Amino acid sequence: MKSGNVYDFRVEPQDVDFTLRATLASMCNNVLNIAGIDAQRNGFGVDALMKNNCSWVLSRMAAEFDCLPVQFTEYSIRTWVNYDGRVLSSRNFEITDREGRVFGRVVTQWAMINFQTRRPVDLNELAEDYTSVLSDEASPCERPRKLHAVEAVESFEHRIVYSDIDFNRHVNTMRYMDLMVDMLPIETFAEPHSVRLDFHFVKESVYGQTLTVGFRPQGDTSLFEIKSDDGAIVCRAAFEWK
Amino acid sequence: MKSGNVYDFRVEPQDVDFTLRATLASMCNNVLNIAGIDAQRNGFGVDALMKNNCSWVLSRMAAEFDCLPVQFTEYSIRTWVNYDGRVLSSRNFEITDREGRVFGRVVTQWAMINFQTRRPVDLNELAEDYTSVLSDEASPCERPRKLHAVEAVESFEHRIVYSDIDFNRHVNTMRYMDLMVDMLPIETFAEPHSVRLDFHFVKESVYGQTLTVGFRPQGDTSLFEIKSDDGAIVCRAAFEWK
Repeated sequence: MKSGNVYDFRVEPQDVDFTLRATLASMCNNVLNIAGIDAQRNGFGVDALMKNNCSWVLSRMAAEFDCLPVQFTEYSIRTWVNYDGRVLSSRNFEITDREGRVFGRVVTQWAMINFQTRRPVDLNELAEDYTSVLSDEASPCERPRKLHAVEAVESFEHRIVYSDIDFNRHVNTMRYMDLMVDMLPIETFAEPHSVRLDFHFVKESVYGQTLTVGFRPQGDTSLFEIKSDDGAIVCRAAFEWK
Repeated sequence: MKSGNVYDFRVEPQDVDFTLRATLASMCNNVLNIAGIDAQRNGFGVDALMKNNCSWVLSRMAAEFDCLPVQFTEYSIRTWVNYDGRVLSSRNFEITDREGRVFGRVVTQWAMINFQTRRPVDLNELAEDYTSVLSDEASPCERPRKLHAVEAVESFEHRIVYSDIDFNRHVNTMRYMDLMVDMLPIETFAEPHSVRLDFHFVKESVYGQTLTVGFRPQGDTSLFEIKSDDGAIVCRAAFEWK
């Protein structure tokens, strides 16, 4: 039997771009929303952790899409958690169409942060709620890769506004992805493609800051690095087009 | 018996702002998504109209929220269509919490446009699919008001990017709302409030254009006007805070 829980989706009109295929952002958005919903269902959601002044923080993410489904396609996302050491929790996702064909694979790595100490929590010391859901099933693709500093050849400034931020006044993870995707030539999306995305979320950015999004094409890969106006690296990403 | 169909929602973590209440944009987004889903269910969705080279175009919208629900609140949206002349179709929405209290009321007015003639279709001549769902039930609040030219005291430029656009390469309706909301002082959202929104969508804007968002506070009302770089008015709005 496959481990974890399964959630059903359909590509809605608001999820597609001008090719009528789901955007990368809408797929990743659903994945991250399922991470929250599934953690809550298992008793270790942000709502439960908040009572102990803790929260999950997304550290790295790798996503592979063989294709992007067209409008009104039904698909499902299966998610399971497996062991990834004392500090990082790996939550995995497999995205399957109605014919049972897997077309997307995602690995996310989360740290549990204690807001008072500002330190990660040792996941080995957690209550059974968490440890009992750990699965033996391997991750469905290569885990998030190391990402190096990017020497940008193009950059774009973005002042952080109300619609960018979440309950913490931090920029929503998926806004970083939008800011990156928006730097690519729009023709990038005109043809079906398969892609691997790697993200490293280094530091939160907050309302009032201005972000600089740096971009560098390198062979078949688009490299990105976002910095805040205090010079801190906020996140890095590599999109490898296949 | 109340007319129309009812759809259930819950305020998800991605729907809230730093006050942990649903954003205006997330509520209006759900309303507009339901408009599409309900039209499709009734046989006059964009997918069916496209076969005749027609589509619904949102012309005006009025929305009243007595309050905005907090994270994880369950609510439902009831929607029905009533008669609004030969050119405009009125789709109405009533938003109700689990105790049966109505806290949101929305009226949207749509024209059906023929892409070949670029002219509105006479709704009286439509097939029974459409006319049979027309309800006698009145709209739940005052219909969208007339909005006059705005003499902006503040303005902001925004280049239209990939993440702004829909399947038509037009800017998503809700992105206009984000652009407006982002011009307000963030303290506007710090306290619970009740608000009436009026929108007039005058002309589409497309990828590659630059928008100028003009803002003018006037008493308890925030007035907005968005123009494209060819000087055309794209949309106007008034947010009346109570």
